[in-house]
Amino acid sequence: MILLNGQVDNRINIADRGLHYGDGLFETMAYRHGRVELLTEHLNRLAQGCERLAIPYPGDTVLQSDIKQLSASLTADAVIKIIVTRGQGGRGYRTATNSQPTRIISNHALPNYPQSHTLGIRARLCQQTLSENSSLAGIKHLNRLEQVLARQEWDDDAISEGLMFDQHQYLIEGVMSNVFVVRDNVLLTPKLDRSGVAGIMRSKVMECADKLSIECRQTQLSLADLKCADEVFITNSIIIVWPIIQIDNVAEYVHGDITEKTQSALMEMI
Amino acid sequence: MILLNGQVDNRINIADRGLHYGDGLFETMAYRHGRVELLTEHLNRLAQGCERLAIPYPGDTVLQSDIKQLSASLTADAVIKIIVTRGQGGRGYRTATNSQPTRIISNHALPNYPQSHTLGIRARLCQQTLSENSSLAGIKHLNRLEQVLARQEWDDDAISEGLMFDQHQYLIEGVMSNVFVVRDNVLLTPKLDRSGVAGIMRSKVMECADKLSIECRQTQLSLADLKCADEVFITNSIIIVWPIIQIDNVAEYVHGDITEKTQSALMEMI
Repeated sequence: MILLNGQVDNRINIADRGLHYGDGLFETMAYRHGRVELLTEHLNRLAQGCERLAIPYPGDTVLQSDIKQLSASLTADAVIKIIVTRGQGGRGYRTATNSQPTRIISNHALPNYPQSHTLGIRARLCQQTLSENSSLAGIKHLNRLEQVLARQEWDDDAISEGLMFDQHQYLIEGVMSNVFVVRDNVLLTPKLDRSGVAGIMRSKVMECADKLSIECRQTQLSLADLKCADEVFITNSIIIVWPIIQIDNVAEYVHGDITEKTQSALMEMI
Repeated sequence: MILLNGQVDNRINIADRGLHYGDGLFETMAYRHGRVELLTEHLNRLAQGCERLAIPYPGDTVLQSDIKQLSASLTADAVIKIIVTRGQGGRGYRTATNSQPTRIISNHALPNYPQSHTLGIRARLCQQTLSENSSLAGIKHLNRLEQVLARQEWDDDAISEGLMFDQHQYLIEGVMSNVFVVRDNVLLTPKLDRSGVAGIMRSKVMECADKLSIECRQTQLSLADLKCADEVFITNSIIIVWPIIQIDNVAEYVHGDITEKTQSALMEMI
């Protein structure tokens, strides 16, 4: 089912700025065991993204009502995606002062990832870099060509994720995930002040580390840090946590203690 | 009129990757005196953009046929816009191997710019920077949030364009235009190997300079170069050339000889 501004529909006006400029934001959430996981956190990030782009936020009440309507139609676990665009109007890049945002709520099949991915996956390094712009960093906006191009670099299904760097050779994130590195029992994750998406699961992992009294820092990480890491894992709202046990041509890791503790603790928090 | 894959329509499938990721390209062309100006050049750039993004190019024949159909409905000069997206399919960022591109051809009213703009406009400097990524530089893709944010910086109608810089403080382009600087009778325009859109009218100006035996170079330009320029002008397919006679808080210029010569010569070439 797709709800367009609250109505069942599967087509959108071609004049929508989401199509013309990627002028909008999205959230991808897991619907499992009859509920949307971390819904509040996702709506909060969406609201922040809207504020950053000066798109009127449709409001928690409206979005929750849409999600309730959509969820009622679900008979199995699913992915629920929200897209909010600036809607129509404006002249060229110039936005209209009275624009009405468009909201799209849709459900999709959960990807059929092997359960073994929670024990370890293979990853690779992407050639495609992430550009840097603090005005777009952190938010989950619709300008995603860099991710699309990065994901085109491989079609070997045995490789589950690609890691991406900025143009200063700093590690930023996975194509569809955030990344954490464990070194000497400290959890490290890239700062996302100039590139990347600040994932909801990334925040939960940091919260989790705090509860577990594991030191966790946002910092600059390079390929050298990946090479000497004790453990590496990736996160997003659908996969939750996947340990990386091999980065092609770079390093191999174990599914280690800190990753396991984080995985267990997250299960309590979601 | 809007033609979606050759059929009159005004709505597009919500699953289109153009909406989800800005996974596509566009062209904006002037339809004046019963013909599309520089159509061949626009289609060539679109084809190059498709190649860069690995989107199957719909082909000149198909697009020309769409444009012919749309043009037949026009009774006045207009803007014609082409959007080509990767279409539907794929899983997340991953593209489908057999994706069918979506093509959208639409007409829009020509903006009612004052005729006096061809004699001189006021511009400003934008705070919003352009990010750098050689894999996206030059092509007219649908990831345009930086332009949208830049255009939000002013609403004074007396200011017709904002100039944008990259994060190394190099001048790149206007929000909706390319920029040329004249110094000591030499025409200079920013290199666009890491940011910016390589405009069709920009190419025509360079071709024009060659015919007029005016030296023209693509180079790195800074704010200092703007400050000591003799003439500055902007270009795009709709406005053709507008001289800048004032950049707020930076400099004032005359509508000078080189700009005038370029304007006249372009009229013969379009």
